[in-house]
Amino acid sequence: MDRVPVLKLGDILIVSIQIDLQDQSVLALQEDLADKVVQTGARGVIIDITAVEIIDSFIGRMLSTIASITRLLDAETVVVGMRPAVAITLVELGLSLGGVRTALNLEKGVALLNHLDGARLAVAPR
Amino acid sequence: MDRVPVLKLGDILIVSIQIDLQDQSVLALQEDLADKVVQTGARGVIIDITAVEIIDSFIGRMLSTIASITRLLDAETVVVGMRPAVAITLVELGLSLGGVRTALNLEKGVALLNHLDGARLAVAPR
Repeated sequence: MDRVPVLKLGDILIVSIQIDLQDQSVLALQEDLADKVVQTGARGVIIDITAVEIIDSFIGRMLSTIASITRLLDAETVVVGMRPAVAITLVELGLSLGGVRTALNLEKGVALLNHLDGARLAVAPR
Repeated sequence: MDRVPVLKLGDILIVSIQIDLQDQSVLALQEDLADKVVQTGARGVIIDITAVEIIDSFIGRMLSTIASITRLLDAETVVVGMRPAVAITLVELGLSLGGVRTALNLEKGVALLNHLDGARLAVAPR
């Protein structure tokens, strides 16, 4: 049970991280997500970290990497459900989660993706 | 990290089970779900078991219990993402998941809940 499941809802993929991620499971998650974005044509990825109590530089880098990968595949990544203590620690450690968007919870994440998508469509050539 | 997070999207709660559930975490999940159904007025609960490789009588009973609890609180529970091997084992063991509705995946689970809700509204007294 060390593969994180990727759920699909409409054109959004949802990942809820509940296990302590190790090198292997992080690589598996990156691959699974990239595959699934291509397979489904998803326009957004939401990563829920409600259950994550500690974010170190390893997890921080993983989130940035996933955001970069999905962006290349034309999908935005939003991290949701960050605990206050995690946010404090991130700032204290100077970890910036470069390129990662965040939202308070799943609902706000979905709203953000819808908003971004609207913005993207608005500037698309006609 | 042994508490399963409960996500909310609209009036549906989503739970993705990824850890091997022990007695303690099952009780915690039942309480969390009941609390959250009441708190949010959710009308549906979706339990994703994509990551679950083995369902024994313990997990089967847990799913039935959660379905019964949420039904008393006016919310339907749908179990989604069951692996083929799990379905085969359940039938071979004679475990019936009494009172638990199932759907193939998250999207179909949401569709089922919408359908049920429509049906419930249709027979509601005016």
